[in-house]
Amino acid sequence: MKFIDSLIGSLESKHSHVCVGLDSRYDQLPDFVKKGVSLSDAVFTFNKQIIEATSDIAVAYKINTTFYSAFGEEGLRALLQTNRFLRSQYKNIPVLADCKRNELGDGAHLMSKEIFDTYLFTCVLVTPWFGSDAIHELLKKDEHGVCVYVHDSNPSAKEIQELELRDGSKLYEGVTQQVVHRWNTNGNVFVEAGLTYPDALARVRKITGRQMPILTSGIGAQGGKAESLRGLFGIHGKRLIVNSSRGILFAGKGSKDYFSEVRKAADTLRINILKQLSV
Amino acid sequence: MKFIDSLIGSLESKHSHVCVGLDSRYDQLPDFVKKGVSLSDAVFTFNKQIIEATSDIAVAYKINTTFYSAFGEEGLRALLQTNRFLRSQYKNIPVLADCKRNELGDGAHLMSKEIFDTYLFTCVLVTPWFGSDAIHELLKKDEHGVCVYVHDSNPSAKEIQELELRDGSKLYEGVTQQVVHRWNTNGNVFVEAGLTYPDALARVRKITGRQMPILTSGIGAQGGKAESLRGLFGIHGKRLIVNSSRGILFAGKGSKDYFSEVRKAADTLRINILKQLSV
Repeated sequence: MKFIDSLIGSLESKHSHVCVGLDSRYDQLPDFVKKGVSLSDAVFTFNKQIIEATSDIAVAYKINTTFYSAFGEEGLRALLQTNRFLRSQYKNIPVLADCKRNELGDGAHLMSKEIFDTYLFTCVLVTPWFGSDAIHELLKKDEHGVCVYVHDSNPSAKEIQELELRDGSKLYEGVTQQVVHRWNTNGNVFVEAGLTYPDALARVRKITGRQMPILTSGIGAQGGKAESLRGLFGIHGKRLIVNSSRGILFAGKGSKDYFSEVRKAADTLRINILKQLSV
Repeated sequence: MKFIDSLIGSLESKHSHVCVGLDSRYDQLPDFVKKGVSLSDAVFTFNKQIIEATSDIAVAYKINTTFYSAFGEEGLRALLQTNRFLRSQYKNIPVLADCKRNELGDGAHLMSKEIFDTYLFTCVLVTPWFGSDAIHELLKKDEHGVCVYVHDSNPSAKEIQELELRDGSKLYEGVTQQVVHRWNTNGNVFVEAGLTYPDALARVRKITGRQMPILTSGIGAQGGKAESLRGLFGIHGKRLIVNSSRGILFAGKGSKDYFSEVRKAADTLRINILKQLSV
């Protein structure tokens, strides 16, 4: 299945734009999943229950790989178990590797194998810094997606990404132009822009047009507001994905029925986003 | 020991500027190291012999982590064994993680633990794309170094890195300015610029001044010429590091005495670089 079809299919069938970020950092997991089991079992069991509680709401799952690799072999085992579970039980839901990483030449070929073949992701998030070489190897198969960070949600993102170019545009705008008009040679490339910079996000949508999906993040705790999504949903309202990680994962904290609260948080976000679509 | 002192100490004591890139991709290793042993043993044994053959020439070792992580647990085990060997036997030689990777917020803290504490690197190479947030966590301890890719050696590096800014300078120049004047708050940050773009490398040296180390790569097979290093060595000729990976690692191919040929290749490069210093 083409990546882009799995992503848009998810958006069309679920009446949702919610991407669930499985940033399941072991030391932040609730005690009841950690008791008496290994790190990898605790993380995988937690993820499995998060996925089961949200699979009809999540249009995609996004995994920050550092939250796993930082815990060594055990962490990577949990990552692989999670992706095996997702690919076998929910094979139409895209699984995004949020690795903020690039490779060149031979390394790009190896990175592609690692991300897609070994760890079973269906999409990878990369920086534009090294140019198109660094993404060419990753976008070769249209069953895989490539998402380019064009404007991030963190406070210092603007230091580089908003530098002004000779023609008066900002760097992130120039980068988005290149992604849209030159790099997307296989129809499986899209962009990420943070909701914490709503004006930049709106500019990015202007440049991409209404066809290309946009992934946004930073809603909630980081300061991004659902209202800022208005007018940015793209064709049929189905070209925008909104990631939330901690706001969903840890919503059950202190509750007796942890995963119902997780589901509620995901659904509340889903509804809150849909409201912006009808405004 | 401060990272910057270990790096400059190496440059001062060895009459060398050679950084050996341990891009020891399992499938490219000579058969004699692979026979009858596991992947991790083959890679580690190969690295150990490369290190023993070059330790008095190498001012640093640089490891492209993808060449290990792409081979799963076995690959990462070889990486850890290599760094344990380096840190125990050659503790004053800097070990650079060429991971082309960044993290933000909590993730940056975890990445720092992973790179420096778990894998025992003493320096990490990162992109400037996400701004200073993404490197702040990594430069906190001055026993660690942070190297920022300001102009890479790959053909498409210029697509983004040479975009023209409003003041007429190029993006890589503006980035180098920020690294030098704002990000290097702990005296342990330096920059990487490819030898395949000699004019850009010379501009980077102009901006850094003569004090900050520069790491360059792309010499030999990639087209970079030793002559382009002239005038760029910095204070006392001791602020420039020139990486070579395959040109050294695989120099013994077909020879009966593999590792003498490796040593010869490293030493030939060392001498070739020193000649440029005296021109």
